[in-house]
Amino acid sequence: MNRTLLAILGVVCAISAQAKIVTQTVEYQQGDTTLEGYLAFDDSITGKRPGVLVVHQWMGLTDYEKHRAEQLAQLGYVAFCADIYGKGVRPKDTGEAGPLAGKYKGDRALLRARVNAALDVLEKNQFVDSKRVAAIGYCFGGTTVIELARSGADIAGVVSFHGGLDSPTPADGKNIKSKVLVCHGADDPFVKPSDLAAFEDEMRQANVDWTLIKFGGAVHSFTQPMAGNDNSKGAAYNEKADKRSWEAMKAFFAEIFK
Amino acid sequence: MNRTLLAILGVVCAISAQAKIVTQTVEYQQGDTTLEGYLAFDDSITGKRPGVLVVHQWMGLTDYEKHRAEQLAQLGYVAFCADIYGKGVRPKDTGEAGPLAGKYKGDRALLRARVNAALDVLEKNQFVDSKRVAAIGYCFGGTTVIELARSGADIAGVVSFHGGLDSPTPADGKNIKSKVLVCHGADDPFVKPSDLAAFEDEMRQANVDWTLIKFGGAVHSFTQPMAGNDNSKGAAYNEKADKRSWEAMKAFFAEIFK
Repeated sequence: MNRTLLAILGVVCAISAQAKIVTQTVEYQQGDTTLEGYLAFDDSITGKRPGVLVVHQWMGLTDYEKHRAEQLAQLGYVAFCADIYGKGVRPKDTGEAGPLAGKYKGDRALLRARVNAALDVLEKNQFVDSKRVAAIGYCFGGTTVIELARSGADIAGVVSFHGGLDSPTPADGKNIKSKVLVCHGADDPFVKPSDLAAFEDEMRQANVDWTLIKFGGAVHSFTQPMAGNDNSKGAAYNEKADKRSWEAMKAFFAEIFK
Repeated sequence: MNRTLLAILGVVCAISAQAKIVTQTVEYQQGDTTLEGYLAFDDSITGKRPGVLVVHQWMGLTDYEKHRAEQLAQLGYVAFCADIYGKGVRPKDTGEAGPLAGKYKGDRALLRARVNAALDVLEKNQFVDSKRVAAIGYCFGGTTVIELARSGADIAGVVSFHGGLDSPTPADGKNIKSKVLVCHGADDPFVKPSDLAAFEDEMRQANVDWTLIKFGGAVHSFTQPMAGNDNSKGAAYNEKADKRSWEAMKAFFAEIFK
């Protein structure tokens, strides 16, 4: 718009480019189970800052989530990737991932315990302002962060990217204290219309502060390049929806971390 | 996050505050009908810039839309408020507004002609980069900007705020060249679930680039303070949804005006 403005924004970008991202593998416990998460933060920032928990899709904690954590660290947040499955439990293919994800989706109490254990690690991190914490998740992780909210976690917000939205106990919506943003592929065949409707009703009944974005032309896994580009498979990457949902998340954080 | 960054952003804000907004009433024609629109732009900016058409709600062109145009001018756009009803045709109450809005909703060809006449004024403005034009609208105006897209207008995007989404000719979705963003109150009783479903199908069938945001807890007119605060009336202001939808529009413009 304006050359002076552009020049100044150029300086801002240059400053951002000086970020020094530090990453660490972090072991922690839930009950008797050892879990292995992944921390990322910008070492050039001093003082406490907001924290963002990142919950993995059904394949477990992979480089994908680690990269998201690094992106969040570049935005100035302390990011911590949860490990829901346990140290060393990393499915080698979808055949192994299905039953694992199913186990936790079928035992929401255990799922809540696992995600809350990861939240606890993040909130106790020395650089995290524990009053400004959010959680994001992909697919299975999207379900998990909504389940985290349903567990009554006292955090600022959760963001689900193409997560399953069903709940065996819809009345638990009343426990939700955090704001909820759902980024949903409008053509996602893995989230039934009845699940979507039930989710909306759960939010309404419980008077939750919620927003749902439907991305046209997007199916399941729309943020994940490894899903390929064939919508007919029901899961595929969609660059526009990926970028737009990331921007929506940033706007959500700008609001809740004020 | 960072004191240097904050200091620089402070300078950016100070520059924005120097904007000098100029406004003008503009007479124009559609067929034999004289219409009276309202232009707003920042006189401190030189050169061409994106243009945004603003279409009024059922009460016709009021100070509400003029204020939105001024807000858009402050963002650096040339904004032009359309007048769909005609010069001097300004309903004094909802009793007058209903039949007027109904007339144009019932004659989509006329509605398209009226909104395209306003678009023409905007695109010919000396400060407008006619390759970077969008249209936004509220309630009746939301319906109108989607109808503008359905007319085949070659613009970058349209944004509907709590607009009606029904179409008597869903096959016209195939004419849509612009990107579409719909900001919708999740509890809006004036947009039937069947209209919403039909709209989504229209977008799908025509392979439109579309996004729909459902704002939880919001009913019709959620951007309009004059609607009051009683959701049980079906139309009410919702500050959160107002601010969030405005931010979503800004992000949409940032993408389409690149």
